[in-house]
Amino acid sequence: MNPTTTVDQATKSGTALQLSRRAHLIPASPIRKLAPLADAAKARGIHVYHLNIGQPDIETPACMRSRLKELDAKVLEYSPSGGTPAYVESLQHYYQRRLGMDLRTDQILATTGGSEAILFAFMACANEGDDVLSLEPFYTNYRAFATMAGLNIRPVATRGRDGFHLPAREAFEQALTPRTKVVIICNPNNPTGTVFSREEIEMLAGFCREHGLFLISDEVYREFVYDGRHATSALELPNADDFVIVVDSLSKRYSACGIRLGALVTRNKSVWDAGLRMAQGRLSPPGLAQFIAVGAENLGEEYTRDVVKEYQHRRDVLYDGLRAIPGVSLTKPEGAFYCMPTLPIDDADRFASWLLRDFSHDGATVMVAPATGFYASELGQHEVRIAYVLNEKDLRASIDLLRIALEQYPGRTA
Amino acid sequence: MNPTTTVDQATKSGTALQLSRRAHLIPASPIRKLAPLADAAKARGIHVYHLNIGQPDIETPACMRSRLKELDAKVLEYSPSGGTPAYVESLQHYYQRRLGMDLRTDQILATTGGSEAILFAFMACANEGDDVLSLEPFYTNYRAFATMAGLNIRPVATRGRDGFHLPAREAFEQALTPRTKVVIICNPNNPTGTVFSREEIEMLAGFCREHGLFLISDEVYREFVYDGRHATSALELPNADDFVIVVDSLSKRYSACGIRLGALVTRNKSVWDAGLRMAQGRLSPPGLAQFIAVGAENLGEEYTRDVVKEYQHRRDVLYDGLRAIPGVSLTKPEGAFYCMPTLPIDDADRFASWLLRDFSHDGATVMVAPATGFYASELGQHEVRIAYVLNEKDLRASIDLLRIALEQYPGRTA
Repeated sequence: MNPTTTVDQATKSGTALQLSRRAHLIPASPIRKLAPLADAAKARGIHVYHLNIGQPDIETPACMRSRLKELDAKVLEYSPSGGTPAYVESLQHYYQRRLGMDLRTDQILATTGGSEAILFAFMACANEGDDVLSLEPFYTNYRAFATMAGLNIRPVATRGRDGFHLPAREAFEQALTPRTKVVIICNPNNPTGTVFSREEIEMLAGFCREHGLFLISDEVYREFVYDGRHATSALELPNADDFVIVVDSLSKRYSACGIRLGALVTRNKSVWDAGLRMAQGRLSPPGLAQFIAVGAENLGEEYTRDVVKEYQHRRDVLYDGLRAIPGVSLTKPEGAFYCMPTLPIDDADRFASWLLRDFSHDGATVMVAPATGFYASELGQHEVRIAYVLNEKDLRASIDLLRIALEQYPGRTA
Repeated sequence: MNPTTTVDQATKSGTALQLSRRAHLIPASPIRKLAPLADAAKARGIHVYHLNIGQPDIETPACMRSRLKELDAKVLEYSPSGGTPAYVESLQHYYQRRLGMDLRTDQILATTGGSEAILFAFMACANEGDDVLSLEPFYTNYRAFATMAGLNIRPVATRGRDGFHLPAREAFEQALTPRTKVVIICNPNNPTGTVFSREEIEMLAGFCREHGLFLISDEVYREFVYDGRHATSALELPNADDFVIVVDSLSKRYSACGIRLGALVTRNKSVWDAGLRMAQGRLSPPGLAQFIAVGAENLGEEYTRDVVKEYQHRRDVLYDGLRAIPGVSLTKPEGAFYCMPTLPIDDADRFASWLLRDFSHDGATVMVAPATGFYASELGQHEVRIAYVLNEKDLRASIDLLRIALEQYPGRTA
């Protein structure tokens, strides 16, 4: 034993055990930190309408759920790290059918939800200390994954008055730093409901191409587009194979959020290979999820059409309802199942807490997500994210409650 | 637009798109890179006995699998980020029953396999560039997670001639650097089959306590101990609540590797809280897995007893069989279902490839994991990891093949 080493090191022992910097930086879910207030409201007998979370009430297709009754494996074994051939091929067929796109199975990597695909993509494309350029407001968990990967999010603001569409390319140029390695976009967008046009996506791709950046395109809401729109997949772009990485998920497409199954899709062989090695580290994606996922191959086109029709109707109900409330402003959401209205309030966090703690009407209240959690900058104080995942009746009741709440809220502005 | 910025940045565009350093560093699975050779052997009609992977052939308990037939949820929803109350409470009961330990539900965090618990623990306890002290040989995927977290593994060697038991504390003191933040141990050990004694674990805990280090104790093989041994859980240690983090998993315990369900268990509130925030980032652990996991509550003590008895018998068959092969040396494995014999060979990687590519006997061969993948240093060239997850008949056939192969192998030494 070297006593010198021991003595030197022992000086460390006086200090309390420190967590890592990133452990401190990883944000608590801005939605989930309101959960105790919602629980308390429910404990007081108040019905809480959840507009705060993208958990659809649509049934997971029976042809997926019924697979569980058919499982006859006696041993629930590891699957291949990149996914079972059956699952990966089912995605291959999906891309062929849905986007007319011939992808090879070694361009599709099964992941544990879209979440893991985001983490793998961040890890593969950028070093600790590098920058990720992201539209703002953004899906709040980008920040969690960026922090885990040691990356900084550099926001490019989009504004409600523009329907949260892309700013001119100058805004991206100005946000660029020597350490920018990646641009991430969510299209159709969570939390804003914006569907970016082909021209917008091409502008962004041109920006990435010129500056040698990866483009991570989070397309988990691909199906959810209204008024006849088409969500351009970054996989459709010409001359973009080397820098495009698509994040996909079954969560929303088949209302199967809990199974945790998604994919990372890229034609860049090095990125796919790095993803596979990370996937090997964690051994397998969830096996039961993969087993039922292939049941989706039995769905006809009418499945998506009917679901989208239902959401479009809800969107209309919500949009018309919110517009009719004095002081509320929003542009018509184009896709996904979120919108981000500006409310006549002093502070979205305070308002969201007040709804749960101090407000109720006829024994009910609503829960919304304060927009501040979707911003890296100080913006968003007057906005909330509303998920229209409730049926029409509940949605109408929620809008009524919101109208009444805004009349009573002490921090009402304008 | 600021043209200066554009021109400056444009100089980047000439360079090819670079992956991150960590993307290059994350190792390919040392087992899975032999897979193409195994596939080719099978394509030639050769039967391959898999001694290379810890995929048990024991059935997943029927009381877990049958839960799938009972699932009547119409929407497969997100579960709470830290796990469903039912799953977390089932683990709470397990710890009470199995270790006589009263844990609170906010000391148990559901994770996507033990894998995710390792990643969360690394991320929470150490910054990029910090060191992790690990016994060597180690579970190969520690390296993948350390690389993802930006950590360096500093090995402390254990040796086959000592049954891979811990070296004296001096070896740990010598491996310590100013950036060491964490010690990770796997007990019972993968890949060596060693069960560390209470005294060894206490020595290690004393070392961690004195130097202000976290102790990550990977106990996913807790049940698999032979000859009446007890695997000491780090959770049993006195005065260790603030620095002990246990990694747990249902994969081996219930032969359910494919469902991807585990847990991070710690009495350190800050670590648990950091884990929960990372868990919120990825939304939920797999829901179907959690749903069937609670079925394990119906298992009596005889389940584990019978499984362990079967593995102990296999261990005996393997140990006696390997010892009888000239030039092979090993100490008797004490737990898990692995052993790491030293073989009379020039190079374990070459031997493992040769078995698949050039050898067969009566139409069969064996696949083993070269030990080099379990070492950070240059050690392990003469060792292979053997998983005794096959039934007795197949295990005996495998040992015979290994004996014959070692007689024929051109790189045989001694």
